[in-house]
Amino acid sequence: MTLSQLQEQYQLAKAKNLSLDMSRGKPGADQLALSDELLSETWLQPAKTEKNFDCRNYGILDGIPEARRLFGELLGMPPEQVIVCGNASLTLMYDYLAQCMLFGAGGEPWCKQGQVKFLCPVPGYDRHFGILEHLGIEMINIPMREDGPDMQLVAEHVKNPLVKGLICVPKYSNPEGKTFSDAVVRAFAALKPAAPDFRVIWDNAYLVHDLYDETDELLNIFEAAKECGSEDCFIEVSSFSKISFPGAAVAAIAASPANIKTILSRMNMQTIGHDKLNQLRHVRYFKNLDGIKAHMKKHAAILRPKFEAVLDILSRDLTGIATWTAPRGGYFISLDLPAGCAKRTAQLLKEAGVVLTPAGATFPYGRDPEDRNLRIAPTFPPQEELIAATNLLALCVRIAILEQ
Amino acid sequence: MTLSQLQEQYQLAKAKNLSLDMSRGKPGADQLALSDELLSETWLQPAKTEKNFDCRNYGILDGIPEARRLFGELLGMPPEQVIVCGNASLTLMYDYLAQCMLFGAGGEPWCKQGQVKFLCPVPGYDRHFGILEHLGIEMINIPMREDGPDMQLVAEHVKNPLVKGLICVPKYSNPEGKTFSDAVVRAFAALKPAAPDFRVIWDNAYLVHDLYDETDELLNIFEAAKECGSEDCFIEVSSFSKISFPGAAVAAIAASPANIKTILSRMNMQTIGHDKLNQLRHVRYFKNLDGIKAHMKKHAAILRPKFEAVLDILSRDLTGIATWTAPRGGYFISLDLPAGCAKRTAQLLKEAGVVLTPAGATFPYGRDPEDRNLRIAPTFPPQEELIAATNLLALCVRIAILEQ
Repeated sequence: MTLSQLQEQYQLAKAKNLSLDMSRGKPGADQLALSDELLSETWLQPAKTEKNFDCRNYGILDGIPEARRLFGELLGMPPEQVIVCGNASLTLMYDYLAQCMLFGAGGEPWCKQGQVKFLCPVPGYDRHFGILEHLGIEMINIPMREDGPDMQLVAEHVKNPLVKGLICVPKYSNPEGKTFSDAVVRAFAALKPAAPDFRVIWDNAYLVHDLYDETDELLNIFEAAKECGSEDCFIEVSSFSKISFPGAAVAAIAASPANIKTILSRMNMQTIGHDKLNQLRHVRYFKNLDGIKAHMKKHAAILRPKFEAVLDILSRDLTGIATWTAPRGGYFISLDLPAGCAKRTAQLLKEAGVVLTPAGATFPYGRDPEDRNLRIAPTFPPQEELIAATNLLALCVRIAILEQ
Repeated sequence: MTLSQLQEQYQLAKAKNLSLDMSRGKPGADQLALSDELLSETWLQPAKTEKNFDCRNYGILDGIPEARRLFGELLGMPPEQVIVCGNASLTLMYDYLAQCMLFGAGGEPWCKQGQVKFLCPVPGYDRHFGILEHLGIEMINIPMREDGPDMQLVAEHVKNPLVKGLICVPKYSNPEGKTFSDAVVRAFAALKPAAPDFRVIWDNAYLVHDLYDETDELLNIFEAAKECGSEDCFIEVSSFSKISFPGAAVAAIAASPANIKTILSRMNMQTIGHDKLNQLRHVRYFKNLDGIKAHMKKHAAILRPKFEAVLDILSRDLTGIATWTAPRGGYFISLDLPAGCAKRTAQLLKEAGVVLTPAGATFPYGRDPEDRNLRIAPTFPPQEELIAATNLLALCVRIAILEQ
């Protein structure tokens, strides 16, 4: 089709006054309904832990034992290396990094060491970048390859003692849905950073968020690190946000025994304890890893058709002119356009009533150096709206390319 | 009685192998049961705000509108000056102060201004002092008088630009149970600190925690501050921790419009939103200020006999040799002994199986300069145990004094 034919289609679509949101990785209403039973008071009768501790009262800083065990099973970690907390792994990452700035990670406070830096596999998660920018930590782009970040480049950068860490989503990465290969995980474990206080934030947000029976497998970073004696370099977080209810779920942080001790001593200043009733609810409802996996299959049944609908449209309309990922899990599809087309596409879409994650957001400082990448979040809109939005997206991509 | 007679009694008590805890301000099991109905799923049907926002999903950083309104009513603040958050006001204070260290309060980060200081009315709350010490903020003792801190001394200290704030519990203070008089509140509002980034943390933890129908009344600090144009100097926090369930309740922070804006911009890095389901539960169950007050009367009916039992024993055994407060609300009784007797009393008690808040804990750095003050927390033990523990406390006080 010619540009003017496409523009005609676009005007017709615009006239429909759509209002569609594909901007955030939010579960849809049908996914939320999967966990409604979790709200029953029966899970809290009695509201006591297996060791008879009353979850309605103060106490237990590190999480109720059964919740630590459940997260331990989920993460492949001993329960004593897991702290179960409040509702958000984002808060755990922010707090960990803010406390490293103020108090250090074993050494001097990061804020007193000059311009400290973090490595950021790109494209990546905008809220990670937001935390780092807010804390004044300089971000360095590390390109993602098929099987994870460019580890040769990472190994080069960590020779600089001001490079204090790296932040990543190792399984079904945000936004590409890629999973780090065993070789990449082992390369992480084998890093020899010049900074003794180097920390990798291992945001395992999508660890059981598979779309298919055949799942990506992520090597356990702490097992790999143990072989290299580098366990202290890794801080893992995860949550039930996209298992039960985003914002009303339970999150956890896992780390080496030495790091757990430090984290707890800082947390002890910040809180008397997290919401144990919600921890108990989650444990009693999900029971164990099998319970979680069975539940995740219900999410997959809802999400698979959504991802496939988007991929079908992209294949139909954009083959040969753009590239995209086809993840086997997670919450996003990453779309790469010819250089210079991402912002224009997002603008066209917005004017037609479809909100995407802003172009550039998948890079530190919101700056996509080639203006190529868009993040598609297929989960929230109902199927019909998703299809309408994606058709429009494909149309806008073609217009943006031809305009160039 | 002679010392040897008292010691004989002590040995008899010790032989009972008691194990009693009067250390923390925890509600007792009967108080927790008052809120059990809160756990019913009926409060969450449907789990949507009045504006039809789904509380099961991400979103709403500043708290659901109805929760902001409820806290607004409780604090006497416009809802838009209230942010409703997670489970702990302690976390809100820690985060606020940690962020002032890192990013400042309008000016340079506190951590870059040299040795910043805070004023601490004493005796005070050990967890306040814990936060300040952890953050490296130097603490300066300000004696409490009958109607609040020595405001003349405060006014002197705030002439130092390194004095960045003050932290206090203005109603039913911890541990004395004193309420700041109108004159003291107005003196706070009228302070002219040299530091433009001076902040008073107004921890209104016990604002409806009355023991009697005739209640202490605290002047609204923001109304007083408005008259002086000093609203930006005050950060108020409160929570439902001792209204519903400690650790599984809802907390809020209230401040001037300018401060709310700053707090939200920082909070936006730290979380996508707090647990809205728990906010909704609390709003629907407690409904309004009248609902809260009716509920607090049930707490009072349980707590009044406990406080009175302690006070009776102190009057019977310690009149003329020690002094104590007789609060009309809150969670503590403060006991002042002759100088040099507090640690010894706590040690004797501990050896007999009764745990108190450590002597010294009510002062910054755990250092009671005269070793006089003990904090009694009557709420957690059942009545019979409380009486046994207080009898023993009075005995140990008398022994410690005579030993001297």
